[in-house]
Amino acid sequence: MSEQHASPPDSVAVRAAVAAALAEDRAAFDVTTHALVPPAQAGRGDFVFREAGVVCGLEVAREVFAQLSPALALEVACPEGSAVAAGTTVATVHGPLSATLSGERVALNFVQRMSGVATIARRYVEAAAAGGRARVVDTRKTTPGLRALERYAVRVGGAGNHRNTLEDGVLIKDNHIAAAAQRGLTLADVIREARARSPHTLRVEVEADTAAQARAGWEAGADVVMLDNMTPAEMRAIVAGAPRHVIFEASGGITLETVAEVAASGVHLISSGALTHSARALDVALDLRPA
Amino acid sequence: MSEQHASPPDSVAVRAAVAAALAEDRAAFDVTTHALVPPAQAGRGDFVFREAGVVCGLEVAREVFAQLSPALALEVACPEGSAVAAGTTVATVHGPLSATLSGERVALNFVQRMSGVATIARRYVEAAAAGGRARVVDTRKTTPGLRALERYAVRVGGAGNHRNTLEDGVLIKDNHIAAAAQRGLTLADVIREARARSPHTLRVEVEADTAAQARAGWEAGADVVMLDNMTPAEMRAIVAGAPRHVIFEASGGITLETVAEVAASGVHLISSGALTHSARALDVALDLRPA
Amino acid sequence: MSEQHASPPDSVAVRAAVAAALAEDRAAFDVTTHALVPPAQAGRGDFVFREAGVVCGLEVAREVFAQLSPALALEVACPEGSAVAAGTTVATVHGPLSATLSGERVALNFVQRMSGVATIARRYVEAAAAGGRARVVDTRKTTPGLRALERYAVRVGGAGNHRNTLEDGVLIKDNHIAAAAQRGLTLADVIREARARSPHTLRVEVEADTAAQARAGWEAGADVVMLDNMTPAEMRAIVAGAPRHVIFEASGGITLETVAEVAASGVHLISSGALTHSARALDVALDLRPA
Amino acid sequence: MSEQHASPPDSVAVRAAVAAALAEDRAAFDVTTHALVPPAQAGRGDFVFREAGVVCGLEVAREVFAQLSPALALEVACPEGSAVAAGTTVATVHGPLSATLSGERVALNFVQRMSGVATIARRYVEAAAAGGRARVVDTRKTTPGLRALERYAVRVGGAGNHRNTLEDGVLIKDNHIAAAAQRGLTLADVIREARARSPHTLRVEVEADTAAQARAGWEAGADVVMLDNMTPAEMRAIVAGAPRHVIFEASGGITLETVAEVAASGVHLISSGALTHSARALDVALDLRPA
Amino acid sequence: MSEQHASPPDSVAVRAAVAAALAEDRAAFDVTTHALVPPAQAGRGDFVFREAGVVCGLEVAREVFAQLSPALALEVACPEGSAVAAGTTVATVHGPLSATLSGERVALNFVQRMSGVATIARRYVEAAAAGGRARVVDTRKTTPGLRALERYAVRVGGAGNHRNTLEDGVLIKDNHIAAAAQRGLTLADVIREARARSPHTLRVEVEADTAAQARAGWEAGADVVMLDNMTPAEMRAIVAGAPRHVIFEASGGITLETVAEVAASGVHLISSGALTHSARALDVALDLRPA
Amino acid sequence: MSEQHASPPDSVAVRAAVAAALAEDRAAFDVTTHALVPPAQAGRGDFVFREAGVVCGLEVAREVFAQLSPALALEVACPEGSAVAAGTTVATVHGPLSATLSGERVALNFVQRMSGVATIARRYVEAAAAGGRARVVDTRKTTPGLRALERYAVRVGGAGNHRNTLEDGVLIKDNHIAAAAQRGLTLADVIREARARSPHTLRVEVEADTAAQARAGWEAGADVVMLDNMTPAEMRAIVAGAPRHVIFEASGGITLETVAEVAASGVHLISSGALTHSARALDVALDLRPA
Repeated sequence: MSEQHASPPDSVAVRAAVAAALAEDRAAFDVTTHALVPPAQAGRGDFVFREAGVVCGLEVAREVFAQLSPALALEVACPEGSAVAAGTTVATVHGPLSATLSGERVALNFVQRMSGVATIARRYVEAAAAGGRARVVDTRKTTPGLRALERYAVRVGGAGNHRNTLEDGVLIKDNHIAAAAQRGLTLADVIREARARSPHTLRVEVEADTAAQARAGWEAGADVVMLDNMTPAEMRAIVAGAPRHVIFEASGGITLETVAEVAASGVHLISSGALTHSARALDVALDLRPA
Repeated sequence: MSEQHASPPDSVAVRAAVAAALAEDRAAFDVTTHALVPPAQAGRGDFVFREAGVVCGLEVAREVFAQLSPALALEVACPEGSAVAAGTTVATVHGPLSATLSGERVALNFVQRMSGVATIARRYVEAAAAGGRARVVDTRKTTPGLRALERYAVRVGGAGNHRNTLEDGVLIKDNHIAAAAQRGLTLADVIREARARSPHTLRVEVEADTAAQARAGWEAGADVVMLDNMTPAEMRAIVAGAPRHVIFEASGGITLETVAEVAASGVHLISSGALTHSARALDVALDLRPA
Repeated sequence: MSEQHASPPDSVAVRAAVAAALAEDRAAFDVTTHALVPPAQAGRGDFVFREAGVVCGLEVAREVFAQLSPALALEVACPEGSAVAAGTTVATVHGPLSATLSGERVALNFVQRMSGVATIARRYVEAAAAGGRARVVDTRKTTPGLRALERYAVRVGGAGNHRNTLEDGVLIKDNHIAAAAQRGLTLADVIREARARSPHTLRVEVEADTAAQARAGWEAGADVVMLDNMTPAEMRAIVAGAPRHVIFEASGGITLETVAEVAASGVHLISSGALTHSARALDVALDLRPA
Repeated sequence: MSEQHASPPDSVAVRAAVAAALAEDRAAFDVTTHALVPPAQAGRGDFVFREAGVVCGLEVAREVFAQLSPALALEVACPEGSAVAAGTTVATVHGPLSATLSGERVALNFVQRMSGVATIARRYVEAAAAGGRARVVDTRKTTPGLRALERYAVRVGGAGNHRNTLEDGVLIKDNHIAAAAQRGLTLADVIREARARSPHTLRVEVEADTAAQARAGWEAGADVVMLDNMTPAEMRAIVAGAPRHVIFEASGGITLETVAEVAASGVHLISSGALTHSARALDVALDLRPA
Repeated sequence: MSEQHASPPDSVAVRAAVAAALAEDRAAFDVTTHALVPPAQAGRGDFVFREAGVVCGLEVAREVFAQLSPALALEVACPEGSAVAAGTTVATVHGPLSATLSGERVALNFVQRMSGVATIARRYVEAAAAGGRARVVDTRKTTPGLRALERYAVRVGGAGNHRNTLEDGVLIKDNHIAAAAQRGLTLADVIREARARSPHTLRVEVEADTAAQARAGWEAGADVVMLDNMTPAEMRAIVAGAPRHVIFEASGGITLETVAEVAASGVHLISSGALTHSARALDVALDLRPA
Repeated sequence: MSEQHASPPDSVAVRAAVAAALAEDRAAFDVTTHALVPPAQAGRGDFVFREAGVVCGLEVAREVFAQLSPALALEVACPEGSAVAAGTTVATVHGPLSATLSGERVALNFVQRMSGVATIARRYVEAAAAGGRARVVDTRKTTPGLRALERYAVRVGGAGNHRNTLEDGVLIKDNHIAAAAQRGLTLADVIREARARSPHTLRVEVEADTAAQARAGWEAGADVVMLDNMTPAEMRAIVAGAPRHVIFEASGGITLETVAEVAASGVHLISSGALTHSARALDVALDLRPA
């Protein structure tokens, strides 16, 4: 499991994402609720997990309700990161019923998605731990507009974060190598140029599809080598033959079924886009009861 | 299949979503590409579907590249809505290689997600057609911030759209009924209030969990009755016993396996949150080749 | 009078409109007040109606002062919707005099305009009540940027709201019919297409200029028929000859003088752009007195 | 008539006002037009003045259509400032019919309001010209959010502009004098403080309710004296008795009936809030015809 | 020294500038602090002036910390405008250490720059006072985006403000005169046009490079004459030969060494771009100590 | 000199900074120019360097004029990075004179500041080159809101960039070490924690005030050691005694006079806040001539 702190997501990003979601749903123009629920009516609503999973996104739900009414409060029963069974009430919102109902769908859309990511991340982390000490990390294959929230969900699930943006890491991928080859550059040239022309605060990582490319990478000075779409056996051989200071990241098509074997190969990091790009929303509901 | 036009998504929303995604990825600060690709180098990149599916999101990809460089152009080989086999090149971007690489991930994140939604929508539509003429529609269980794009992907897949926001439809759900019951109102009272207090341009739809509730709904004047979590047999009985002018929407846990049977029950609409909240990203890649 | 709740305007829209108005007036750069009023000087200012009318916009004025100084408070003497005589003090602002003076014009611009709309709406509602039970409603002929506030003022005046936007109602107007006719479509075709291609949560309303068009409209399935620019007698005849489930909206050139007679014709709704597009600002002033 | 150029309104403000108005009307979600008008259908729409008036706002209408579709073009038949008779076609929009219809209401809302302001301004200017050479100017009693557009309409009507914001003029009003009096300051003290503490690029104007106040104002060094709510005879006597370098502004309750007599009193400026705060929207329509 | 109040900068501008600076620095993504400082750890940080100067910008620093954490508080030891010796602690921030460290650089960037401006302004004011009573003022040569803060720093230093924008003063510069000359206009024509076509609330100032131009300026009615790049002796002669009501502004290349002599020439204002465009950042540090 | 590409600044940031600067100056409300320059008058304006320096910011000036009028064009005579003598015309703007004059001050404010930064950077780079091969780099001590532009100016001057934000580099400063010491952590603990808890794509840099701290840093695994406020002799000794893979950055109070000696000490990087926080604006003017 990652040693990275599960530091909370950028509060500016959370506020902006929530405001955008409420505007998108036109929560202030909720014709049904305006017609049926008097402003003074109060109530309580329980967030109930209809299936087992890892709780995530309650602070975002809190922001949803805060933006709709300062009189709404959220009581958290199961803090972020809790693994809960089906049927568990993880939090309760209470206060004006009108604002509760106008925000219900948006709050659930966040909680269901973020809990889905945290749940799948937790599964990967637990599966990998059976094989070795590799850190499971996410990728930049996140939902456009929700990266800060999804990366937070990954941390809540116990996994770590890869670079966040194109700025905080030099990652030389196949397309960069192909582009440089068109200019007559070898892999060694590419790594030297990347090193010379990027800020000294960044490491240089290079993608390798074969053992030969991997060796060429570290010999040319790459700090990190990404082993793309290799078998655990191939990776084990490469890691075993490399100097100790080289860091290896396994990538490409790793599943819950294969992650333990990959971890056992000796790589330091295992990255998986599946943590975010295909996470299923968890089934969570809001059940009303009298105030 | 829906008769709704697959009208394009709001261009203002597309521009905003793309700008937000590029800022989120800090595409203008791509240290790797800035170090390795000279501004004058040109090239071509093919969008290749690595698995079969329905093409969607190419116009969003076009906007991604347009925002990065006015010199980039996208040629579409397979228009939106095409069902393609694994290995198909659906579009090609050409122009400055630097901007192409800085936008690659963001463009793919949109195309993979939107094609994923269009593909699952197409499957539901085709499965339902085997059972009857019911229109498959989406829900408001969309990704926060991406509703306009996901609803468009649903239309590209051939399905229809439910209401877009809390403003363009009166939909009385279980929580509204429960809230009103706390004030001593019957279901009939609720429907009458909703009718009297909402704009005359909106229909009134009510959720029903039982046949009795469904009957109470239409007798109190609801235009549409949502049959929630019922078996096809239950729905068939209800529809058969109702006046012809009542519209029925089936909802709740409908899967690709059950949708034909639901359609055969005689309901007019089948709504499914799964179209958007749990769609898997399709496997799409950008393959570079010389200009 | 409408049964719609006078639900408050979207607080996000209020905050944005107030911030824009203060920026437009450069209230933070008030050279006169900065030169003459020391920050520590306090005072009270009375909002006085110089002519009779319906009070509206005080909550917007409160937001104006709140954005300028957290130390300003507004005491409301006559709540929104009160009908007051000339000379009435409807509210008092007290706290820092400097911020009061910098916000005076913007606060008055909102209150004068909104009270003007509420006052004319009240007059239409009262005049219509003398003729029958029709609901008076507004139109989309609102001031660009202020629709949420003006629609709220209409509700405060006791009238109702028509659809808010192009999304929350299908309204087939003369230009739509003309456009479809260019494609060879009949009115019946148009209504069927509109029904088939729009979300099931919306009613379909069609504009009719003659009795024949009105009949064609309901026979083709329109839920609502707008009778445009007809005499009360013409409308009475049409309503009398139509099935009970058809809803009629009178529209076009209805004045305070004619609205009772229109209401007596049996139509269900009377819409008037004059409620918003030509409402005169009420004469309201801010009178200072020692703190 | 003013010698001020009728310089166009700030294009940034125009773009922002139009974008806000289209968003407010959800023009991109026009369910009726999407259902009925195919994207490829083209047409022409004439802007027809149903009543006589001064044309204003066509460039704003052009921006409305430009934001909806780059394929829409506006041909202007009667340029801004033209005085036209009822029934005149002042401009024609042609191109995609769908975008034309989605923007119709917003475009008309701008043109009707701006033409209303230009028309009333023209009437005041013409009426004042019969009495003397005073310049008619507007006030800050404008519609929140639309000041730049309304001030432009005032110029198109031939009148001039007073200060635009709280920053570009020192205007000491009754409330400032009252506030200073609470601190024991005389009118002369107030004018001296204002002079000493404001940028040297601004004149100092002071409001006077009586002849004595007016004299005290100019004697204390005010550059401009506003004569508030005085009769033409009172104003004539004050102007006659003042040094030539003092500038006089007449203000308060001046109507089309009285403006000539006010102008004849010798004042240099006549300001009227009625130009903007109570201008009636002109009756303008968009009439479709085949492309 | 100026009699202008040192009114605080626009709080909207402060909030926006701070939010932009924190986003620019990605303070919410501070990888070092997130790795090393637990959320619960508290501490104190002293703002220490490493060199002598005038304190300015502490309220902006307060806003920086407020945006990062509501639990951070700033205690001010030396209020804005204090002249302090090297080594002085001017303020202390205390609360969560993590947020303190994430905001340190941004807070210092503001305080160092604003104190630099206030310090140089103070020096100019003190030097000028030795020569005469002229008011030292700034120019529009400010840092893009920071004008409100820099003008505030100028006031804190004891100097005054020239016009803020292109709207709050008519200032006819050499390029305007040259442009008008291309149309055949004399300087007198230019001044008359400017007077006739600008709001009556503004004075007219004209730039003069020679004594002849200066005389032509006031004879044509300019309220203010800017004497550009003249020697003190030239300025003294011009001022002595002019009517008393003409206001003179000295401008162009005035330094700390020459400002007293310029002030002694009898001009009313001395403007200097150096106050803002070339102010050196003061050396200020944040020193941590246990909570 | 740096091998980093002088990649252009983020065009989104440029557009935003220019729009903000024009709004701040209210360029659309330029009363002087509106009064004096007819819209149709054209002209040319030369950007003339009044003192020698390195040209920078012309593309930002181009954006200024483009936002004011699409009819304005900028011809560049001396491209970015040119070292020019006093009196050189570096670019010419031509087109509508009105827009040229309204944008003059804002364009100059950018060019003067950016050229000032590029010029000082060039001097540091040239001075350092006399001593050794160290790369001169900037810091985060930039003007709030202008970091992207100032870092670009640094590159144009030939220097390199340190990390851009708090996210793209782990930099453990004295305050982080002090904070950790309060928790009982040694320097070695701190470096290990930073390594374990931050993304693997980032290097770890640590600040050292003494030779002992420097050694502790690299022994605990720091990739980079910042030598703060040391003499060249001290630095030379430390570098000589360290393993070859350790990277050294000299920092603190390095001036044009000392930079060569520092470079000669063998450090790899020399960072200087003076490049941005105290750069003097260069003297640049816009001289009009007939079109």
